Amino acid sequence: MQELEERIQSDGIVIDNEILKVDSFINHQIDTGLLRRICTYLVEPFHSIDKVVTVETSGIAFAVVAAQLLGDVPVVFAKKSKSKIVDATNVYIANVKSFTRGIVSPITIDKRFLKKGEKVLIVDDFLAEGNASLGLVELCQQAGAQVEGVAVAVEKSFQGGHAKLNAMGIPVRSGADVAGFDRGKVLFADEKLPH
Amino acid sequence: MQELEERIQSDGIVIDNEILKVDSFINHQIDTGLLRRICTYLVEPFHSIDKVVTVETSGIAFAVVAAQLLGDVPVVFAKKSKSKIVDATNVYIANVKSFTRGIVSPITIDKRFLKKGEKVLIVDDFLAEGNASLGLVELCQQAGAQVEGVAVAVEKSFQGGHAKLNAMGIPVRSGADVAGFDRGKVLFADEKLPH
Repeated sequence: MQELEERIQSDGIVIDNEILKVDSFINHQIDTGLLRRICTYLVEPFHSIDKVVTVETSGIAFAVVAAQLLGDVPVVFAKKSKSKIVDATNVYIANVKSFTRGIVSPITIDKRFLKKGEKVLIVDDFLAEGNASLGLVELCQQAGAQVEGVAVAVEKSFQGGHAKLNAMGIPVRSGADVAGFDRGKVLFADEKLPH
Repeated sequence: MQELEERIQSDGIVIDNEILKVDSFINHQIDTGLLRRICTYLVEPFHSIDKVVTVETSGIAFAVVAAQLLGDVPVVFAKKSKSKIVDATNVYIANVKSFTRGIVSPITIDKRFLKKGEKVLIVDDFLAEGNASLGLVELCQQAGAQVEGVAVAVEKSFQGGHAKLNAMGIPVRSGADVAGFDRGKVLFADEKLPH
Protein backbone atom coordinates (compact mmCIF):
# COMPACT_ATOMS: atom_id res chain seq x y z
CA MET A 1 0.00 0.00 0.00
CA GLN A 2 1.81 3.01 -1.36
CA GLU A 3 0.67 5.62 1.17
CA LEU A 4 1.84 3.50 4.10
CA GLU A 5 5.18 2.68 2.49
CA GLU A 6 5.78 6.37 1.85
CA ARG A 7 4.84 7.24 5.43
CA ILE A 8 7.17 4.59 6.83
CA GLN A 9 9.94 5.96 4.63
CA SER A 10 9.34 9.57 5.75
CA ASP A 11 8.36 9.16 9.44
CA GLY A 12 9.64 5.71 10.47
CA ILE A 13 12.83 5.72 12.51
CA VAL A 14 15.41 3.02 11.76
CA ILE A 15 17.64 2.19 14.73
CA ASP A 16 20.96 0.36 14.28
CA ASN A 17 19.90 -0.71 10.74
CA GLU A 18 17.69 -3.33 12.46
CA ILE A 19 14.68 -1.91 14.36
CA LEU A 20 11.88 0.13 12.77
CA LYS A 21 10.03 2.56 15.05
CA VAL A 22 6.64 3.78 13.79
CA ASP A 23 5.41 5.24 17.06
CA SER A 24 4.60 8.65 15.57
CA PHE A 25 1.72 7.30 13.46
CA ILE A 26 1.02 3.60 14.31
CA ASN A 27 1.54 2.52 17.90
CA HIS A 28 1.84 5.39 20.37
CA GLN A 29 0.50 8.32 18.41
CA ILE A 30 -2.00 7.08 15.79
CA ASP A 31 -2.85 8.85 12.53
CA THR A 32 -6.55 7.99 12.51
CA GLY A 33 -7.13 8.92 8.87
CA LEU A 34 -4.25 6.72 7.72
CA LEU A 35 -5.57 4.02 10.07
CA ARG A 36 -8.90 3.95 8.25
CA ARG A 37 -7.23 3.84 4.82
CA ILE A 38 -4.95 0.99 5.94
CA CYS A 39 -7.93 -0.96 7.34
CA THR A 40 -9.93 -0.37 4.16
CA TYR A 41 -7.06 -1.91 2.22
CA LEU A 42 -6.63 -4.78 4.69
CA VAL A 43 -10.25 -5.99 4.78
CA GLU A 44 -10.82 -5.78 1.02
CA PRO A 45 -10.36 -9.54 0.26
CA PHE A 46 -12.32 -10.77 3.28
CA HIS A 47 -16.07 -11.41 3.30
CA SER A 48 -18.64 -12.88 5.71
CA ILE A 49 -16.41 -12.34 8.74
CA ASP A 50 -18.24 -12.88 12.06
CA LYS A 51 -15.63 -11.49 14.43
CA VAL A 52 -12.29 -9.69 14.51
CA VAL A 53 -9.76 -10.98 17.04
CA THR A 54 -6.62 -9.15 18.18
CA VAL A 55 -4.37 -8.93 21.24
CA GLU A 56 -3.83 -5.89 23.47
CA THR A 57 -2.46 -3.24 23.16
CA SER A 58 -1.54 -1.75 19.84
CA GLY A 59 -3.66 -4.09 17.70
CA ILE A 60 -6.91 -2.74 19.16
CA ALA A 61 -7.09 0.42 17.04
CA PHE A 62 -6.71 -1.57 13.80
CA ALA A 63 -9.10 -4.31 14.93
CA VAL A 64 -11.90 -1.89 15.80
CA VAL A 65 -11.74 0.08 12.56
CA ALA A 66 -11.42 -3.11 10.45
CA ALA A 67 -14.45 -4.58 12.26
CA GLN A 68 -16.53 -1.49 11.53
CA LEU A 69 -15.57 -1.71 7.84
CA LEU A 70 -16.57 -5.40 7.82
CA GLY A 71 -20.11 -4.43 8.83
CA ASP A 72 -19.82 -3.54 12.53
CA VAL A 73 -18.87 -7.08 13.57
CA PRO A 74 -17.66 -7.53 17.18
CA VAL A 75 -14.02 -7.27 18.20
CA VAL A 76 -12.49 -9.46 20.89
CA PHE A 77 -9.04 -8.57 22.18
CA ALA A 78 -7.01 -11.24 23.94
CA LYS A 79 -5.58 -10.15 27.26
CA LYS A 80 -1.95 -10.52 28.22
CA SER A 81 -1.91 -12.24 31.57
CA LYS A 82 0.24 -10.64 34.28
CA SER A 83 0.52 -14.03 35.98
CA LYS A 84 2.11 -17.18 34.56
CA ILE A 85 -0.65 -19.23 36.18
CA VAL A 86 -4.12 -18.73 34.74
CA ASP A 87 -7.28 -20.56 35.76
CA ALA A 88 -8.43 -22.24 32.53
CA THR A 89 -12.01 -22.84 33.65
CA ASN A 90 -13.44 -19.80 31.87
CA VAL A 91 -10.78 -18.78 29.36
CA TYR A 92 -8.90 -20.12 26.36
CA ILE A 93 -5.13 -19.81 26.93
CA ALA A 94 -2.13 -19.75 24.61
CA ASN A 95 1.51 -19.07 25.45
CA VAL A 96 3.19 -16.38 23.37
CA LYS A 97 6.90 -15.64 23.19
CA SER A 98 7.65 -11.92 23.04
CA PHE A 99 9.94 -11.08 20.10
CA THR A 100 11.35 -7.97 21.78
CA ARG A 101 11.67 -9.24 25.35
CA GLY A 102 12.26 -12.97 24.83
CA ILE A 103 9.90 -14.08 27.62
CA VAL A 104 6.85 -16.34 27.31
CA SER A 105 3.50 -14.99 28.56
CA PRO A 106 -0.03 -16.39 28.42
CA ILE A 107 -2.75 -14.61 26.43
CA THR A 108 -6.38 -15.36 27.18
CA ILE A 109 -9.88 -14.92 25.75
CA ASP A 110 -13.02 -15.52 27.79
CA LYS A 111 -14.81 -18.64 26.51
CA ARG A 112 -18.05 -16.62 26.17
CA PHE A 113 -16.51 -14.56 23.34
CA LEU A 114 -15.23 -17.19 20.88
CA LYS A 115 -17.66 -19.77 19.50
CA LYS A 116 -17.47 -22.89 17.39
CA GLY A 117 -17.94 -22.15 13.69
CA GLU A 118 -17.38 -18.40 13.89
CA LYS A 119 -15.40 -16.99 10.96
CA VAL A 120 -12.58 -14.93 12.43
CA LEU A 121 -10.23 -12.35 10.94
CA ILE A 122 -7.13 -11.79 13.07
CA VAL A 123 -5.94 -8.17 12.93
CA ASP A 124 -2.79 -6.65 14.41
CA ASP A 125 -0.40 -3.76 13.89
CA PHE A 126 2.74 -5.88 13.37
CA LEU A 127 3.66 -9.36 12.13
CA ALA A 128 7.28 -10.54 12.33
CA GLU A 129 8.05 -14.01 13.70
CA GLY A 130 4.29 -14.47 14.04
CA ASN A 131 4.20 -15.51 17.69
CA ALA A 132 1.26 -13.29 18.66
CA SER A 133 -0.76 -14.29 15.57
CA LEU A 134 -0.03 -17.98 16.09
CA GLY A 135 -1.19 -17.61 19.70
CA LEU A 136 -4.44 -16.06 18.50
CA VAL A 137 -4.87 -18.86 15.94
CA GLU A 138 -4.43 -21.36 18.79
CA LEU A 139 -7.16 -19.65 20.86
CA CYS A 140 -9.51 -19.79 17.86
CA GLN A 141 -8.71 -23.47 17.32
CA GLN A 142 -9.47 -24.25 20.98
CA ALA A 143 -12.90 -22.63 20.48
CA GLY A 144 -13.52 -24.38 17.15
CA ALA A 145 -13.63 -21.02 15.36
CA GLN A 146 -12.37 -20.75 11.78
CA VAL A 147 -9.50 -18.34 11.04
CA GLU A 148 -10.19 -16.82 7.61
CA GLY A 149 -7.01 -14.75 7.52
CA VAL A 150 -4.49 -12.54 9.27
CA ALA A 151 -4.39 -8.84 8.39
CA VAL A 152 -1.63 -6.57 9.71
CA ALA A 153 -0.58 -2.99 9.05
CA VAL A 154 3.13 -3.78 8.80
CA GLU A 155 4.85 -7.14 8.40
CA LYS A 156 8.44 -8.27 8.08
CA SER A 157 7.82 -11.43 6.09
CA PHE A 158 11.53 -12.28 6.05
CA GLN A 159 11.21 -13.09 9.77
CA GLY A 160 8.99 -16.08 9.01
CA GLY A 161 5.55 -15.35 10.47
CA HIS A 162 3.92 -15.04 7.06
CA ALA A 163 5.21 -18.45 5.90
CA LYS A 164 4.18 -20.21 9.12
CA LEU A 165 0.60 -18.93 8.79
CA ASN A 166 0.48 -19.84 5.08
CA ALA A 167 1.67 -23.36 5.98
CA MET A 168 -1.47 -23.68 8.12
CA GLY A 169 -3.64 -22.61 5.17
CA ILE A 170 -4.14 -19.09 6.53
CA PRO A 171 -3.79 -16.18 4.06
CA VAL A 172 -1.92 -13.06 5.20
CA ARG A 173 -2.64 -9.49 4.10
CA SER A 174 -0.38 -6.57 5.03
CA GLY A 175 -0.26 -2.85 4.31
CA ALA A 176 3.53 -2.90 3.96
CA ASP A 177 6.14 -5.65 3.92
CA VAL A 178 9.48 -4.47 5.27
CA ALA A 179 12.21 -6.54 3.63
CA GLY A 180 15.21 -4.98 5.31
CA PHE A 181 17.20 -1.82 5.81
CA ASP A 182 19.98 -0.14 3.89
CA ARG A 183 21.91 2.68 5.57
CA GLY A 184 18.82 3.93 7.47
CA LYS A 185 16.47 3.56 4.47
CA VAL A 186 13.62 1.00 4.59
CA LEU A 187 13.45 -1.58 1.82
CA PHE A 188 10.03 -3.07 0.95
CA ALA A 189 9.18 -6.43 -0.58
CA ASP A 190 6.99 -6.22 -3.68
CA GLU A 191 3.38 -5.40 -2.90
CA LYS A 192 1.55 -8.72 -2.75
CA LEU A 193 -1.95 -10.07 -2.96
CA PRO A 194 -2.88 -12.26 0.04
CA HIS A 195 -1.58 -15.78 -0.40
CA MET B 1 -27.64 7.84 26.38
CA GLN B 2 -30.62 5.54 26.33
CA GLU B 3 -29.20 2.77 24.12
CA LEU B 4 -26.15 2.35 26.36
CA GLU B 5 -28.21 2.39 29.57
CA GLU B 6 -30.48 -0.31 28.13
CA ARG B 7 -27.50 -2.39 27.07
CA ILE B 8 -25.89 -2.09 30.50
CA GLN B 9 -29.19 -3.16 32.05
CA SER B 10 -29.56 -6.17 29.75
CA ASP B 11 -25.92 -7.36 29.29
CA GLY B 12 -23.99 -5.84 32.22
CA ILE B 13 -23.21 -8.24 35.04
CA VAL B 14 -23.50 -6.93 38.60
CA ILE B 15 -21.29 -8.77 41.09
CA ASP B 16 -21.93 -8.56 44.84
CA ASN B 17 -24.18 -5.51 44.31
CA GLU B 18 -20.97 -3.51 43.86
CA ILE B 19 -19.01 -4.28 40.68
CA LEU B 20 -20.36 -3.79 37.12
CA LYS B 21 -18.88 -6.00 34.39
CA VAL B 22 -19.43 -4.85 30.82
CA ASP B 23 -16.88 -7.11 29.18
CA SER B 24 -19.35 -8.55 26.65
CA PHE B 25 -19.71 -5.24 24.78
CA ILE B 26 -17.23 -2.61 26.12
CA ASN B 27 -13.84 -3.87 27.30
CA HIS B 28 -13.03 -7.43 26.22
CA GLN B 29 -15.54 -8.04 23.47
CA ILE B 30 -16.50 -4.73 21.82
CA ASP B 31 -19.77 -4.01 20.02
CA THR B 32 -18.31 -1.81 17.29
CA GLY B 33 -21.65 -0.38 16.14
CA LEU B 34 -22.58 0.64 19.68
CA LEU B 35 -19.04 1.99 20.06
CA ARG B 36 -19.55 4.39 17.14
CA ARG B 37 -22.93 5.53 18.46
CA ILE B 38 -21.47 6.14 21.94
CA CYS B 39 -18.57 8.10 20.46
CA THR B 40 -20.93 10.15 18.27
CA TYR B 41 -22.82 11.09 21.44
CA LEU B 42 -19.63 11.81 23.40
CA VAL B 43 -17.95 14.16 20.93
CA GLU B 44 -21.07 16.19 20.13
CA PRO B 45 -20.31 19.20 22.42
CA PHE B 46 -16.60 19.40 21.54
CA HIS B 47 -15.17 21.43 18.66
CA SER B 48 -11.73 22.38 17.34
CA ILE B 49 -10.04 19.48 19.15
CA ASP B 50 -6.42 18.94 18.01
CA LYS B 51 -5.76 15.58 19.65
CA VAL B 52 -7.47 12.78 21.58
CA VAL B 53 -5.52 11.38 24.54
CA THR B 54 -6.25 8.10 26.34
CA VAL B 55 -4.41 5.42 28.30
CA GLU B 56 -3.92 1.80 27.32
CA THR B 57 -5.73 -0.60 27.10
CA SER B 58 -9.49 -0.41 26.95
CA GLY B 59 -9.69 3.33 26.24
CA ILE B 60 -8.02 2.93 22.85
CA ALA B 61 -11.12 1.74 20.96
CA PHE B 62 -13.17 4.74 22.15
CA ALA B 63 -10.32 7.20 21.56
CA VAL B 64 -9.75 6.11 17.97
CA VAL B 65 -13.40 6.25 16.93
CA ALA B 66 -13.95 9.58 18.73
CA ALA B 67 -10.87 11.01 17.01
CA GLN B 68 -12.17 9.96 13.59
CA LEU B 69 -15.51 11.62 14.33
CA LEU B 70 -13.68 14.81 15.38
CA GLY B 71 -12.15 15.04 11.89
CA ASP B 72 -9.46 12.36 11.87
CA VAL B 73 -7.38 14.08 14.56
CA PRO B 74 -4.46 12.05 16.01
CA VAL B 75 -4.80 9.79 19.05
CA VAL B 76 -2.04 9.41 21.62
CA PHE B 77 -2.33 6.65 24.16
CA ALA B 78 -0.33 6.88 27.38
CA LYS B 79 1.63 3.76 28.21
CA LYS B 80 1.51 2.02 31.54
CA SER B 81 5.09 1.56 32.63
CA LYS B 82 6.10 -1.91 33.79
CA SER B 83 8.89 -0.39 35.85
CA LYS B 84 8.50 2.07 38.75
CA ILE B 85 11.60 3.89 37.53
CA VAL B 86 11.21 5.72 34.23
CA ASP B 87 13.79 7.89 32.50
CA ALA B 88 12.06 11.28 32.25
CA THR B 89 14.36 12.65 29.54
CA ASN B 90 12.02 11.91 26.67
CA VAL B 91 8.60 11.31 28.29
CA TYR B 92 6.04 13.07 30.45
CA ILE B 93 5.27 10.97 33.55
CA ALA B 94 2.33 10.86 35.97
CA ASN B 95 1.66 8.40 38.77
CA VAL B 96 -1.75 6.74 38.71
CA LYS B 97 -3.34 4.74 41.48
CA SER B 98 -5.23 1.70 40.22
CA PHE B 99 -8.80 1.64 41.57
CA THR B 100 -9.08 -2.15 41.27
CA ARG B 101 -5.59 -3.15 42.39
CA GLY B 102 -4.66 -0.33 44.80
CA ILE B 103 -1.09 0.05 43.49
CA VAL B 104 0.51 3.18 42.03
CA SER B 105 2.03 2.92 38.54
CA PRO B 106 3.55 5.50 36.22
CA ILE B 107 1.92 6.33 32.88
CA THR B 108 3.98 8.04 30.20
CA ILE B 109 3.63 9.90 26.90
CA ASP B 110 6.58 10.63 24.63
CA LYS B 111 7.31 14.37 24.63
CA ARG B 112 7.16 14.39 20.82
CA PHE B 113 3.41 13.65 20.93
CA LEU B 114 2.01 16.36 23.24
CA LYS B 115 2.66 20.00 22.43
CA LYS B 116 2.10 23.35 24.10
CA GLY B 117 -1.22 24.92 23.12
CA GLU B 118 -2.80 21.75 21.68
CA LYS B 119 -6.49 21.38 22.50
CA VAL B 120 -6.95 17.89 23.92
CA LEU B 121 -10.02 15.75 24.53
CA ILE B 122 -9.37 12.94 27.01
CA VAL B 123 -11.37 9.79 26.15
CA ASP B 124 -11.69 6.58 28.14
CA ASP B 125 -14.08 3.69 28.69
CA PHE B 126 -14.58 4.25 32.44
CA LEU B 127 -14.45 7.10 34.95
CA ALA B 128 -14.89 6.36 38.67
CA GLU B 129 -12.48 7.92 41.18
CA GLY B 130 -10.85 9.67 38.22
CA ASN B 131 -7.28 8.59 38.86
CA ALA B 132 -6.50 7.67 35.25
CA SER B 133 -8.12 10.85 33.87
CA LEU B 134 -6.33 13.03 36.43
CA GLY B 135 -3.05 11.37 35.43
CA LEU B 136 -3.75 12.21 31.77
CA VAL B 137 -4.62 15.80 32.72
CA GLU B 138 -1.29 16.02 34.54
CA LEU B 139 0.59 14.81 31.43
CA CYS B 140 -1.21 17.45 29.32
CA GLN B 141 -0.35 20.16 31.87
CA GLN B 142 3.32 19.15 31.81
CA ALA B 143 3.26 19.65 28.03
CA GLY B 144 1.33 22.92 28.23
CA ALA B 145 -1.57 21.36 26.30
CA GLN B 146 -5.14 22.52 27.05
CA VAL B 147 -7.64 19.87 28.23
CA GLU B 148 -11.01 20.78 26.70
CA GLY B 149 -12.92 17.95 28.35
CA VAL B 150 -13.09 14.33 29.46
CA ALA B 151 -15.44 11.98 27.60
CA VAL B 152 -16.09 8.44 28.85
CA ALA B 153 -18.48 5.68 27.89
CA VAL B 154 -19.50 4.84 31.46
CA GLU B 155 -18.95 6.84 34.64
CA LYS B 156 -19.81 6.36 38.28
CA SER B 157 -20.00 10.03 39.28
CA PHE B 158 -20.79 9.12 42.89
CA GLN B 159 -17.17 7.94 43.22
CA GLY B 160 -15.91 11.51 42.82
CA GLY B 161 -13.93 11.63 39.55
CA HIS B 162 -16.49 13.85 37.83
CA ALA B 163 -16.45 16.46 40.64
CA LYS B 164 -12.64 16.53 40.82
CA LEU B 165 -12.38 17.26 37.09
CA ASN B 166 -15.14 19.90 37.26
CA ALA B 167 -13.25 21.57 40.13
CA MET B 168 -10.34 21.99 37.71
CA GLY B 169 -12.64 23.64 35.17
CA ILE B 170 -12.81 20.52 32.98
CA PRO B 171 -16.25 19.46 31.67
CA VAL B 172 -17.14 15.75 31.72
CA ARG B 173 -19.36 13.95 29.21
CA SER B 174 -20.47 10.33 29.69
CA GLY B 175 -22.68 7.88 27.86
CA ALA B 176 -24.12 6.51 31.10
CA ASP B 177 -23.79 7.49 34.76
CA VAL B 178 -24.14 4.50 37.07
CA ALA B 179 -25.50 5.76 40.40
CA GLY B 180 -25.65 2.45 42.23
CA PHE B 181 -27.12 -1.03 42.32
CA ASP B 182 -30.31 -2.45 43.72
CA ARG B 183 -30.63 -6.23 44.00
CA GLY B 184 -28.59 -6.83 40.82
CA LYS B 185 -30.28 -4.03 38.87
CA VAL B 186 -28.26 -0.99 37.75
CA LEU B 187 -29.52 2.45 38.80
CA PHE B 188 -28.61 5.44 36.60
CA ALA B 189 -28.23 9.12 37.53
CA ASP B 190 -30.33 11.48 35.40
CA GLU B 191 -28.93 11.95 31.93
CA LYS B 192 -26.86 15.12 32.09
CA LEU B 193 -25.38 17.69 29.78
CA PRO B 194 -21.64 18.16 30.28
CA HIS B 195 -20.91 20.52 33.18
